[in-house]
Amino acid sequence: MIADERKKQIRQAAIKVFLNKGFRNTVMNDIMEETGLSRGGLYHHYGSTYEILYDLMMDGNLYRRNIIQKSINDENLRLSPNFFSRIIVDKMLAESDYAKIYVMFLCELKENEDLKNLYMKLKKESIQVFKELFSSLSIDIPSDETFEFMINIINSGLMACEVLGARANFIENKKYIMEMIDTYFAKVLNSKEGAK
Amino acid sequence: MIADERKKQIRQAAIKVFLNKGFRNTVMNDIMEETGLSRGGLYHHYGSTYEILYDLMMDGNLYRRNIIQKSINDENLRLSPNFFSRIIVDKMLAESDYAKIYVMFLCELKENEDLKNLYMKLKKESIQVFKELFSSLSIDIPSDETFEFMINIINSGLMACEVLGARANFIENKKYIMEMIDTYFAKVLNSKEGAK
Repeated sequence: MIADERKKQIRQAAIKVFLNKGFRNTVMNDIMEETGLSRGGLYHHYGSTYEILYDLMMDGNLYRRNIIQKSINDENLRLSPNFFSRIIVDKMLAESDYAKIYVMFLCELKENEDLKNLYMKLKKESIQVFKELFSSLSIDIPSDETFEFMINIINSGLMACEVLGARANFIENKKYIMEMIDTYFAKVLNSKEGAK
Repeated sequence: MIADERKKQIRQAAIKVFLNKGFRNTVMNDIMEETGLSRGGLYHHYGSTYEILYDLMMDGNLYRRNIIQKSINDENLRLSPNFFSRIIVDKMLAESDYAKIYVMFLCELKENEDLKNLYMKLKKESIQVFKELFSSLSIDIPSDETFEFMINIINSGLMACEVLGARANFIENKKYIMEMIDTYFAKVLNSKEGAK
């Protein structure tokens, strides 16, 4: 098996173990067992569970871009800020294995400098994706801080769903969350208009 | 020293250690060292770091009630939903040792059943506090789900500040967060009016 395939296989096994035991309670031995690899075989590709989590987040970033691109293609509509509110809320409330592992990643940021640096990088990339999407609207593109705020809102919502068990309550209040985010876009775009 | 005072002394020492090392990286030995107690002396009062965290959260709940009561007294104004938005946002963005330890508590909910039960209990009590405050307004009291939503919003904001380092960005966007929460109260109170 070539190295890339082997690494992918390890990451798949790691997802299973992380979901089962939680990232924090997983040790490399668990992943060895799940993959059936020898100690040397596993450590040749990954030195720690943090390195595996790092690569999983890199995979996830690609996956996320594709999802957004797909919903834009499916939409077949003129993009609007309201459409972005919907993307944001859907992303926040979706229950998926990826969301679970992404939140494990967020909860580890304080413990590992490499993950923190990766988070900064992913945030910058996400800002870039948002900017490209907004540039197709015939409105002024909001500032980086505006997009950073939206990303913080999405991430805090995801954490609340997974860590606090808030998903059911958020789904009940989905229409209000949409309205809150619509309010944000309306106010922030307006204030930019007003500042001219 | 009587038991209550000794326990309080242990909790004070634990706060120091938790802030320094993080809850997850703290073991009972660290707290033994910080307090200068013997192993037997410490374990007589607390069996684990989880038990200490539990009691700290019970302390915090009392503290929080007092804060809210105080800001209502200081206000000397007629209460309004807008005033609640301000309480909520101030609570979310405040940097304090208590906020740090409270977020450590939230991040441990999945790992410890006792903490999870305590969280449910604290949430119920907070809903009760909100209800009492709202009952002094001459408007219909929103449902428990509405208050639960606000509590989830506060907690997810606190987690974002501490875990994601989002505080600076949230402070920049403070006026928008206020407007988002005002929007929520306006819509949810309106919809109740409309449902009559």
